[in-house]
Amino acid sequence: MSSDIKALLFDVFGTVVDWRNSIAREMQRFGDSRQINHDWQQFALDWRAMYQPAMENIRTGNRDYVKLDQLHRENLNQLLESYGLDELDEFQIDYVNRVWHRLQPWADTLPGMNRLRKHHILASLSNGNVSLIVNMAKHSGIPWDMVLGSEPAQGYKPQPAVYLHSANMLDLKPEQCMMVAAHNDDLRVARSLGFKTAYINRPYEYGEGQRSDLVAEDNWDIIGDSMTDIAEGLGC
Amino acid sequence: MSSDIKALLFDVFGTVVDWRNSIAREMQRFGDSRQINHDWQQFALDWRAMYQPAMENIRTGNRDYVKLDQLHRENLNQLLESYGLDELDEFQIDYVNRVWHRLQPWADTLPGMNRLRKHHILASLSNGNVSLIVNMAKHSGIPWDMVLGSEPAQGYKPQPAVYLHSANMLDLKPEQCMMVAAHNDDLRVARSLGFKTAYINRPYEYGEGQRSDLVAEDNWDIIGDSMTDIAEGLGC
Repeated sequence: MSSDIKALLFDVFGTVVDWRNSIAREMQRFGDSRQINHDWQQFALDWRAMYQPAMENIRTGNRDYVKLDQLHRENLNQLLESYGLDELDEFQIDYVNRVWHRLQPWADTLPGMNRLRKHHILASLSNGNVSLIVNMAKHSGIPWDMVLGSEPAQGYKPQPAVYLHSANMLDLKPEQCMMVAAHNDDLRVARSLGFKTAYINRPYEYGEGQRSDLVAEDNWDIIGDSMTDIAEGLGC
Repeated sequence: MSSDIKALLFDVFGTVVDWRNSIAREMQRFGDSRQINHDWQQFALDWRAMYQPAMENIRTGNRDYVKLDQLHRENLNQLLESYGLDELDEFQIDYVNRVWHRLQPWADTLPGMNRLRKHHILASLSNGNVSLIVNMAKHSGIPWDMVLGSEPAQGYKPQPAVYLHSANMLDLKPEQCMMVAAHNDDLRVARSLGFKTAYINRPYEYGEGQRSDLVAEDNWDIIGDSMTDIAEGLGC
């Protein structure tokens, strides 16, 4: 199987990077330096909870495509008061909003991807906008060959066009691409379009209270607990 | 100046890679193995000479955007007979066509880009399609952070939209981007749109008979003879 797979296409939030702890850690420092005390783990979860509804407006065609940075900002604006951030100036709010550009990889991400990159094209297939993914990679050394997904396709996963556009940009057939994700739903759509699938179990993406994506819910082509497991599975 | 420039956007054919010698070398080996004797330097020049007219049909709106791979193939089809390649099968012709995916960098390219990447986002702003640029980078280690330009913008340089789309995908203003090219025309358009400019002199891109782009024809922000000169100029 491995030799037929030319490109690995990765979900990013939760699969490649640990958004919850990255946001909580950075906001803890930010809050401490300004004597703003809140549960920043909860802040990260609250912000993320507004993610799907915001995209849904665009998926349904009620709203034209806008970059995820803009959706993040609109959602952040709704949280500012309850988290004591409403005194911040525009520069500071923008800095907070761009914490998504500074998310950090899980411990196994770079070791695994640096093995995978030797034999495969590695591309993001994320709902993050291009600058978010590029800046994040620059910040922590994620070795993308290409940034694809939402913004290049002008849509949001799980819209099939986002997956198909990504394969087309690489001039590959879906079966030459493997979708790598920590989310069963993402893989279900990818498989339905002909992509190979790899599942990484990330049972703490949402913390101790996580209730979904605790196990592989289908016979994905590769199933592992880390990016290095995916590399093993592909013989890299 | 350097600290205000977030991204370097590179012309690729002639600036980053030596298309003429790369094609001639590979075709020499290809021809030798099949007892096909031709002037493969001339083959490279003949093929390249059909490049601008093919794109012009799309720039003028007479034809919808198609990937450069397709234009290369249509042009190659016209050369097959005169270069003794008309006996090749479809697989072999496609392999020859994709020599553009295997072009090799100038000797100074990787040393210069590996210095530049530490402080800047490096993106292609080429008329090459995405898979061409991604495969070329994978083949020789060109350290792109992002592949932009023609295909993502669905146009061909020097259409202004191709430059502006590239800056927009990075969420940068034109003045935060520096266009790096061995072609004065490319830089003229980039500067007219607000980009910073860096010129690399490549007087042998077309061989001994080259008549244009032998010198910097304007006071570009940086002028050098190599990618390492550009790195020096930016203090990298």
